Amino acid sequence: MNVGFVGLGIMGVRMAGNLLRGGHSLVVFNRTPEKSRPLETAGARAVRTPAEAARGVSLLFTMLSTPDAVTSMALGKDGFLGALTRGSLWIDCSSVDPSFSRHMALEASRLAVRFMDAPVTGSLAVAEKGELTFLAGGDAADLKEARPLLQLMGKTIRHLGPVGMGSAMKMIINMQLGALMAAFSEALALGESLGFSRTILLDTLVGGPVAGPFLAGKRTKLETHAYEPEFPLRWQQKDLHLACTTAWEQGVPMPVINAAKEAFMAAAADGMADLDFSAVAELHVRKH
Amino acid sequence: MNVGFVGLGIMGVRMAGNLLRGGHSLVVFNRTPEKSRPLETAGARAVRTPAEAARGVSLLFTMLSTPDAVTSMALGKDGFLGALTRGSLWIDCSSVDPSFSRHMALEASRLAVRFMDAPVTGSLAVAEKGELTFLAGGDAADLKEARPLLQLMGKTIRHLGPVGMGSAMKMIINMQLGALMAAFSEALALGESLGFSRTILLDTLVGGPVAGPFLAGKRTKLETHAYEPEFPLRWQQKDLHLACTTAWEQGVPMPVINAAKEAFMAAAADGMADLDFSAVAELHVRKH
Amino acid sequence: MNVGFVGLGIMGVRMAGNLLRGGHSLVVFNRTPEKSRPLETAGARAVRTPAEAARGVSLLFTMLSTPDAVTSMALGKDGFLGALTRGSLWIDCSSVDPSFSRHMALEASRLAVRFMDAPVTGSLAVAEKGELTFLAGGDAADLKEARPLLQLMGKTIRHLGPVGMGSAMKMIINMQLGALMAAFSEALALGESLGFSRTILLDTLVGGPVAGPFLAGKRTKLETHAYEPEFPLRWQQKDLHLACTTAWEQGVPMPVINAAKEAFMAAAADGMADLDFSAVAELHVRKH
Amino acid sequence: MNVGFVGLGIMGVRMAGNLLRGGHSLVVFNRTPEKSRPLETAGARAVRTPAEAARGVSLLFTMLSTPDAVTSMALGKDGFLGALTRGSLWIDCSSVDPSFSRHMALEASRLAVRFMDAPVTGSLAVAEKGELTFLAGGDAADLKEARPLLQLMGKTIRHLGPVGMGSAMKMIINMQLGALMAAFSEALALGESLGFSRTILLDTLVGGPVAGPFLAGKRTKLETHAYEPEFPLRWQQKDLHLACTTAWEQGVPMPVINAAKEAFMAAAADGMADLDFSAVAELHVRKH
Repeated sequence: MNVGFVGLGIMGVRMAGNLLRGGHSLVVFNRTPEKSRPLETAGARAVRTPAEAARGVSLLFTMLSTPDAVTSMALGKDGFLGALTRGSLWIDCSSVDPSFSRHMALEASRLAVRFMDAPVTGSLAVAEKGELTFLAGGDAADLKEARPLLQLMGKTIRHLGPVGMGSAMKMIINMQLGALMAAFSEALALGESLGFSRTILLDTLVGGPVAGPFLAGKRTKLETHAYEPEFPLRWQQKDLHLACTTAWEQGVPMPVINAAKEAFMAAAADGMADLDFSAVAELHVRKH
Repeated sequence: MNVGFVGLGIMGVRMAGNLLRGGHSLVVFNRTPEKSRPLETAGARAVRTPAEAARGVSLLFTMLSTPDAVTSMALGKDGFLGALTRGSLWIDCSSVDPSFSRHMALEASRLAVRFMDAPVTGSLAVAEKGELTFLAGGDAADLKEARPLLQLMGKTIRHLGPVGMGSAMKMIINMQLGALMAAFSEALALGESLGFSRTILLDTLVGGPVAGPFLAGKRTKLETHAYEPEFPLRWQQKDLHLACTTAWEQGVPMPVINAAKEAFMAAAADGMADLDFSAVAELHVRKH
Repeated sequence: MNVGFVGLGIMGVRMAGNLLRGGHSLVVFNRTPEKSRPLETAGARAVRTPAEAARGVSLLFTMLSTPDAVTSMALGKDGFLGALTRGSLWIDCSSVDPSFSRHMALEASRLAVRFMDAPVTGSLAVAEKGELTFLAGGDAADLKEARPLLQLMGKTIRHLGPVGMGSAMKMIINMQLGALMAAFSEALALGESLGFSRTILLDTLVGGPVAGPFLAGKRTKLETHAYEPEFPLRWQQKDLHLACTTAWEQGVPMPVINAAKEAFMAAAADGMADLDFSAVAELHVRKH
Repeated sequence: MNVGFVGLGIMGVRMAGNLLRGGHSLVVFNRTPEKSRPLETAGARAVRTPAEAARGVSLLFTMLSTPDAVTSMALGKDGFLGALTRGSLWIDCSSVDPSFSRHMALEASRLAVRFMDAPVTGSLAVAEKGELTFLAGGDAADLKEARPLLQLMGKTIRHLGPVGMGSAMKMIINMQLGALMAAFSEALALGESLGFSRTILLDTLVGGPVAGPFLAGKRTKLETHAYEPEFPLRWQQKDLHLACTTAWEQGVPMPVINAAKEAFMAAAADGMADLDFSAVAELHVRKH
């Protein structure tokens, strides 16, 4: 199948690689062209505008960092949406809020393009192995059509309802991720102030019933205080902001999540926006 | 060995039962005498004051709900501390703050009584089976002496440092428990407002990398909205308060944990203090 | 001068009335036409679409409740923006966020319409008397042209910088208003729980150095627990949301303001959205 | 009258000076003896232990920084409580929590000493001029007896109820002070990020209806970024902690006040504990 892929960040490049290895003909675009090189070597065709990545393909994937980035690629100068063939399918794997996904679906429908939101969960290693989980929102028929391609990139494909519901669930998962990381950071800070070593705290808490299992994968970062970005703090901060904005739209109070959002705000203001989001643990340490 | 046990709540009665089954001669006291009956039937001797539970025993366990309850039993009218033989060992399994444990150790030492703090983690079912985890603070020699008895009640015994360090770690674990439960409650509220069923949210989140594993044990409560107390909300609220007070003593900012504390405060003020602490999930649901 | 006025809520109707009394020829539009009646009686011409309120006027005022309401009136079906004469001036007195004001200025400039943001501060009584404070953002020349009209409605006219700066300052003032009201509510709740009457608390705090002076005007509402809306709670909630969103755009942590925002969220979720915003004081009272 | 005065900090020394100028025979004690010098020069007798300040006096004032400091001076080694004559009156002007005041009253009553809590509000300048406000809790007869002395130090004397009610009201006032300062700090940070100068923000907000009037006195500190301590940040932090602990005892949720407490915690952890509490405004500024 002729497939387009826009957005070759640390996740996108791995996902596109798996599509290529699955035998599909791939056209790729990334704002920073260097990131396309490894895929070109592997047989993809790199193009110079989002629009070129859309021409003639029957399915286009996007994997971008923020709603603004999606808007710009889709609707900005040389955007892809106007270049997609009528009846083609655009699957947005970016982590955005559900009302944004519904807005994009509307824009697509005006041009007779079908739309699904299908953000993913899983680490870089999981993306590499093609074992991501897709959280899909959209028509069952569209999902059925896309399933063979999604299965090259992921192990689990959950259909969660109409357009927006994939984004909604991803947003909820990421806001939990942020809240747990922020709460755990405070536990580390309190524990260290009381005389526990970070190692004893990690030994006792991680893997137990009251710490997020994802923390096992953050253990080295937390012990070495070196936060090579896997999931950058600025994106976690954005996801918490999107969740809080959605909660406002829905009229749902979320005082704990808002406090976690502000912890990441403070960490970003302290210069940690480009580190891994687990660097929020340094917020309290630095101050002692 | 002659052993005393003060505090036969939902955890204490199970712990004392395991000591009895292990062949020890047990004297028990509980403020509400009815709670002693099952243990009497099983061979324990129930007494009418805390002091009587301490006379002639070489080891006394306490399992009480708050620092105030411990103070009252130990130092109040007919308190046990003055009745303990010089050289005997008092092991407090209550969840208290570390400075309280150090204070009790000091009171005990004035009467030549040895002291350890050894709070536990684990559910009722785990307590029943004698598979609790003990988080112990105190002298290694004292712990060695107590180990055979602790092993009748628990599977894992962690020595975390001098007096107070067991309480400190328990406090940190429980404050995580509270924060995760409060954050998850907000995720449920937001998710339901967006159209997800509670079941779909639990299916997607529980058991995954970003939800506390303990939530699996809360699933039925959350789905049926029936919150039979396993760990009452008022105790979770107390543990969060102790943690925040300790953080203040230590000069550690904990904005997220404080927000979680206030969520439990609001739930208690709404009449949920005697329900299971997972009832905090109803705080947001009721309001819609 | 031929002047248009769109939005005749509790503030707008008083502002338009003062323009009319100043001798200007006024065309008015309101979504609910009944609200135009008193002004019609006083000589205004009421029209049936926003567009009609814009035709032939050299200056158009808007006083609407939210950014969405402004967007709909300006750019929606029969919107006024397309109907304004090239070179005319649109002054938006609504409380919106600064990035929204800049966005509107851009939309206006595309049609050669000049734009200023000039939100107001002051109570209903102050509006009635024509003694509002205008917080103006935009060109000095435009402000000079509008000043005679603003002076019919207000006593103080502050020019705070280019487009958006009026909205920015108004947003900051309202977020302070919300934070002070929420903090004062907690003081009332704590004070009453300790045995103080509400009257003693108001006597001691209001008028003193550590309570917002605006609270004097809320005293009757707080004492009678009757919250006839002067500034509805849902608008305060909106303003706190706009401020928090702007803080996110600017990278500024605001943990206290976010907590206040969530207190108003909880009050709205409890059914108080249409009461005066001081009803947030009932949030804690009701729970006891 | 023979009067004792324990605690000669920045407020105490001014209050004791006014008693002396009123013609009373004064015995003074301070932990750091140098602070007694100016009063000795003016005619007071400085002693070397708290007990000596209590012997033979009919009225003893205390003005100390924390509940722990009061406990230590009253009940510690050479404490004053045991040295007070039966029937004498101890007036504690320290800012403490109400349950602590009631506890001290109980300790005093055991020794047949009468007790009142009478914390004060007012700046250094106000203390200097003898124009403080006393918030008194205790018996009306005791207050009547003390009134001539209180009037040498203060202009307004409010009797708020039995023992503890003075402390309760002071605690509520100070927690408002902290919350307003923290909220205003966030307004400054947001305003500056949007391009307003600090001066414009102060001009617009201070003196208006929605900023605490006390901010006028903080203006120079905020404009020069020099925070010479008038009311040290660590005491504000302590007062917020006492208020939150009391709210926990009373079962009152206070999410906004707790968030303000954590802002001061972060400022203290950042090294600002000994600056004026208005230095919390630097928390956000430093990070940009």
